[in-house]
Amino acid sequence: MPNEKGPDHSRRKERSRQAILAATRALVAEEPYEKVTVEAIAARAGVGKQTIYRRWPSKSAVVFAAFLALSEGADGPGEGADGPAVALPDTGDLGADLRLVLRATAEEFADPAFDRLIRALTTEIANDAVLAAEYQEKLAQPLEEAKKARLRSAQAAGQLAADADLDLFLDLLYAPLFQRWLHRAGPLTADYADALVDAALRAFAP
Amino acid sequence: MPNEKGPDHSRRKERSRQAILAATRALVAEEPYEKVTVEAIAARAGVGKQTIYRRWPSKSAVVFAAFLALSEGADGPGEGADGPAVALPDTGDLGADLRLVLRATAEEFADPAFDRLIRALTTEIANDAVLAAEYQEKLAQPLEEAKKARLRSAQAAGQLAADADLDLFLDLLYAPLFQRWLHRAGPLTADYADALVDAALRAFAP
Repeated sequence: MPNEKGPDHSRRKERSRQAILAATRALVAEEPYEKVTVEAIAARAGVGKQTIYRRWPSKSAVVFAAFLALSEGADGPGEGADGPAVALPDTGDLGADLRLVLRATAEEFADPAFDRLIRALTTEIANDAVLAAEYQEKLAQPLEEAKKARLRSAQAAGQLAADADLDLFLDLLYAPLFQRWLHRAGPLTADYADALVDAALRAFAP
Repeated sequence: MPNEKGPDHSRRKERSRQAILAATRALVAEEPYEKVTVEAIAARAGVGKQTIYRRWPSKSAVVFAAFLALSEGADGPGEGADGPAVALPDTGDLGADLRLVLRATAEEFADPAFDRLIRALTTEIANDAVLAAEYQEKLAQPLEEAKKARLRSAQAAGQLAADADLDLFLDLLYAPLFQRWLHRAGPLTADYADALVDAALRAFAP
């Protein structure tokens, strides 16, 4: 019996979900991660703790949902609500397109609010194999598929080796940026992003 | 007044240090990381909590010291006590040497006890900028210098571009392995290690 409680109930439920996810992101951005508790999220969202536990089994599950919603643009500022906006630009110049995208990723990591959220998420994923699998399935793999579509078009245009391992290509491009960010091993500059693009393109030149 | 308390005191202190570091590694390998407390370490090592706090300010500092000691072989099984054993093999064949080393790294990550310790350390580093800087200075950079010595010998032998960015080369080689391991995104196979070596060598071919 779907909607047995009527459209008002559904709207209230959705509003409370949005409030919880927004409260989670705000707290993660403001507080040391160990201080972000389900209690604190509930207080900030103005709901009871049980409202959160009815939907998510743990703090890590709420944090993951908060991040997923942001990436999907479902309740992020100024984004559409119809799924991940992940299509890569295709100007016909693979190098230029990748530099644009990788520079944007580097800037995103350098944003303090985003930094806190991704560190929290990375910590949870690193220590929770179930969440890691969910992250791969719901977030990493769809993003990678979108990127590989752009790489296949470059292969068709003769800008990338026809037999290039596209997963490996993406690892070469993104993993060094991720590691440098996670370990705070160096600055996340446009120059570094460009150098990664150039090296990956050389490794898989036609 | 060094050794004012005599050599017996020094020996006892060193034995207690070793016991604390061994207890830390054992606990990290056995317990979920949030259950590894300074109290639990002290109990396992048979020392008082204050003995630990006199030397290290926090749990993260002890965990880092436990990892550092292991890497230095100072109290690891079957290793010498005279600093990190980090020199890379130099058979004259860069590709073969790198494949050997990267396959060994992949195997190390796949070892459950090492996996737990590195996940704990990575979690602490990700959330603590001071520890991240210490990690870079005491562990990552000395290792990278040792690896770069091998790469410079390859440059002299004409096996690597003379103007290759050696830091970037190492990032391309190791970061994808690290990310795949941290996110449990795929198996840490010899094939994957070999593919990384081949791609990095192509990116920086003479």
